[in-house]
Amino acid sequence: MARINDNYLKLKAGYLFPEIGRRVKAFSEVNPSAKIIRMGIGDVTEPLPPAVVEAMHNAVNDMTRRESFHGYGPEQGYDFLRTAIASNDYQPRKCDIAADEIFVSDGSKCDGGNILDIFGNDNTIAVCDPVYPIYVDTNVMAGHTGAADEKGEYRGLVYMRATAENNFSPDIPKQKVDLVYLCFPNNPTGAVATRERLTQWVEYAKANNAVILYDAAYEAYITDPAIPHSIYEIPGGRDVAIEFRSFSKTAGFTGVRCAFTVVPKSVTGRAADGSAVPLHKLWTRRHTTKFNSVAYVVQRGAEACYTAAGKQQVRGLVSFYLENAKLVREGLTAMGLKAYGGVNAPYVWVKTPGNMTSWEAFDLLLGKANVVVTPGSGFGISGEDYFRVSAFNSRENVTEALGRLRGALAAS
Amino acid sequence: MARINDNYLKLKAGYLFPEIGRRVKAFSEVNPSAKIIRMGIGDVTEPLPPAVVEAMHNAVNDMTRRESFHGYGPEQGYDFLRTAIASNDYQPRKCDIAADEIFVSDGSKCDGGNILDIFGNDNTIAVCDPVYPIYVDTNVMAGHTGAADEKGEYRGLVYMRATAENNFSPDIPKQKVDLVYLCFPNNPTGAVATRERLTQWVEYAKANNAVILYDAAYEAYITDPAIPHSIYEIPGGRDVAIEFRSFSKTAGFTGVRCAFTVVPKSVTGRAADGSAVPLHKLWTRRHTTKFNSVAYVVQRGAEACYTAAGKQQVRGLVSFYLENAKLVREGLTAMGLKAYGGVNAPYVWVKTPGNMTSWEAFDLLLGKANVVVTPGSGFGISGEDYFRVSAFNSRENVTEALGRLRGALAAS
Repeated sequence: MARINDNYLKLKAGYLFPEIGRRVKAFSEVNPSAKIIRMGIGDVTEPLPPAVVEAMHNAVNDMTRRESFHGYGPEQGYDFLRTAIASNDYQPRKCDIAADEIFVSDGSKCDGGNILDIFGNDNTIAVCDPVYPIYVDTNVMAGHTGAADEKGEYRGLVYMRATAENNFSPDIPKQKVDLVYLCFPNNPTGAVATRERLTQWVEYAKANNAVILYDAAYEAYITDPAIPHSIYEIPGGRDVAIEFRSFSKTAGFTGVRCAFTVVPKSVTGRAADGSAVPLHKLWTRRHTTKFNSVAYVVQRGAEACYTAAGKQQVRGLVSFYLENAKLVREGLTAMGLKAYGGVNAPYVWVKTPGNMTSWEAFDLLLGKANVVVTPGSGFGISGEDYFRVSAFNSRENVTEALGRLRGALAAS
Repeated sequence: MARINDNYLKLKAGYLFPEIGRRVKAFSEVNPSAKIIRMGIGDVTEPLPPAVVEAMHNAVNDMTRRESFHGYGPEQGYDFLRTAIASNDYQPRKCDIAADEIFVSDGSKCDGGNILDIFGNDNTIAVCDPVYPIYVDTNVMAGHTGAADEKGEYRGLVYMRATAENNFSPDIPKQKVDLVYLCFPNNPTGAVATRERLTQWVEYAKANNAVILYDAAYEAYITDPAIPHSIYEIPGGRDVAIEFRSFSKTAGFTGVRCAFTVVPKSVTGRAADGSAVPLHKLWTRRHTTKFNSVAYVVQRGAEACYTAAGKQQVRGLVSFYLENAKLVREGLTAMGLKAYGGVNAPYVWVKTPGNMTSWEAFDLLLGKANVVVTPGSGFGISGEDYFRVSAFNSRENVTEALGRLRGALAAS
């Protein structure tokens, strides 16, 4: 009798975005003429950079001739891309990261879930609250937690609160944990971690033989020169941290699918016999056994982001979305709302008006302004009186949405 | 202290193909002028079908305009592709498979490993011997086995022998197992399963509440009209089987990365409380949480395989490789070797000459003919006196390799 993974049954009903989709669909059915503007999910809207497009066309053409055809590539990614990443994203910032420590993949969401494969089942795991739900759900699915409590938090996880009081940058835990998920610039709050705070994290990890899983998918949005872009800018970072990055929010690759994970050879975990095992070796085995790399055409597209033209075009996209974020933050502030983030990140984290819960605010804004935001409670209990506004949209939609929100909030 | 997944340490040194690569590299360094022909790994060599190329170019162009830009797609794949698959691959063969039972992915290797996520850790698992190593290795990594014994077989797995005596189609197990991996047409032996044998498998699965994991990646190579292409051609198949398919060996997508897994809504597994849980629901949760679908450009390329032109071009590619397989099989037979497969499959499974082990034959053929084959022992102990020859190559290479093998075997 085939037995299922019972841990899946512990998962709370559905992932956040399907529930948003359900409510929006129900609203649209009752209000078919409403022109809904989606400021919820963090999906890019602007065309791919021309340098990427050209590289992808060229790569498709490579596949039309036997001499330049590409079949199976190296599972970890082509050297041309791994080298471009190391020499552009890391070495100029004095991060000691080599090309062969970079694993090209089809997405940070995938990597952030799959990375658990190489860890044991007896680690104490810390996540932020609010948190990107994938970190929690994949731990539930892997059997690393107990059931959810009445507030929706899973027994066995350590939740680190991120609130306005600590600038949404959680305090270092007092207890010992083994794996720590950090995401800066943060999704959903848009907060960043200072160099001092990241240094404390690296020191904490060293002292506790912990591993930091560092999600830097939004690093390109950092505008403040004092804020580190990578955990590897911190001395000792390469001994304790795995870093996740993506082309999704830089070159607009949400529908192209390319990301990468950095596993330095110096990060280790402990085997049952107490010996230190390089995680690079384990992730190499995982990646080569359960993954077959990313399309050649896509890797050539990603490589083009590092050409002179590609860099400029990617910077243009990031600046465009950052300007949206500024408009959102300033616009909402002018409406009397308390808005955080949006300076070094494409997300604005907004306190709900009055005593509204985040789903109440969601329903209000959908109903009165036909604008979709993301309810903060979808990210954890500390998000209960917040909602997230994404800057990934066209300028017209941002302007229009702000106008409608102004009207809705004035009338409510 | 971060603990690793100790199961990884049970894995035998390296996956088969890296070891082949190591030996070939060592040989090349000593013999730099040798022109090596690789008949080992099953990687396609011929250009993409023109219909696919055109669709991919068009899709890249879609990404240059905001109106036709595609960001995140549905994690399960776009409806256009799922519908094309259901209506071309399944419905014409009277398989009752709906589009929403198809999950588009980036590879059968990935799916075949990831599928274990939704199963429990207490299933009895049966694999064929010889076997595609991924099935075994992913079970080792998931902790479903004990250590390897002196022959390299993992304690806890049920090995089903596939030998010349049973036409490389293993007998139905006498014992009760919960998960059964089957691959027909088979990699590595090139064997097929008759309708009668598949019917026995479905009946076995029904009687034992077992789930069949059916790898049909090579179904397009079936030339015998009596042989089923899908497990769903068997009555009751959709109640007990998950099927894996790929565009890799049909449209030459090994470097493009597109595959799919069929999880019918009627296949269930048991929860701890004994209730039956649809695997479709669990795989949907897995796929949406840990995967973000395949590039829009790639899905459009895959869709083009189902146009009239695309179908004809794909058939042309398959026929080309099948003709290679015929040449290999007939050529090796004429040299006095015993060759199996190669009629309904792109692989020829060859008995080693004399009393040679499979690695001895590998070294002989590499050394004397500069031809790389795959040693059968890499697929399991029943492969010890076999080697696999892949038909995925240019016609010139096949002809040249056969000529050299003839000389090498005559001289040995």
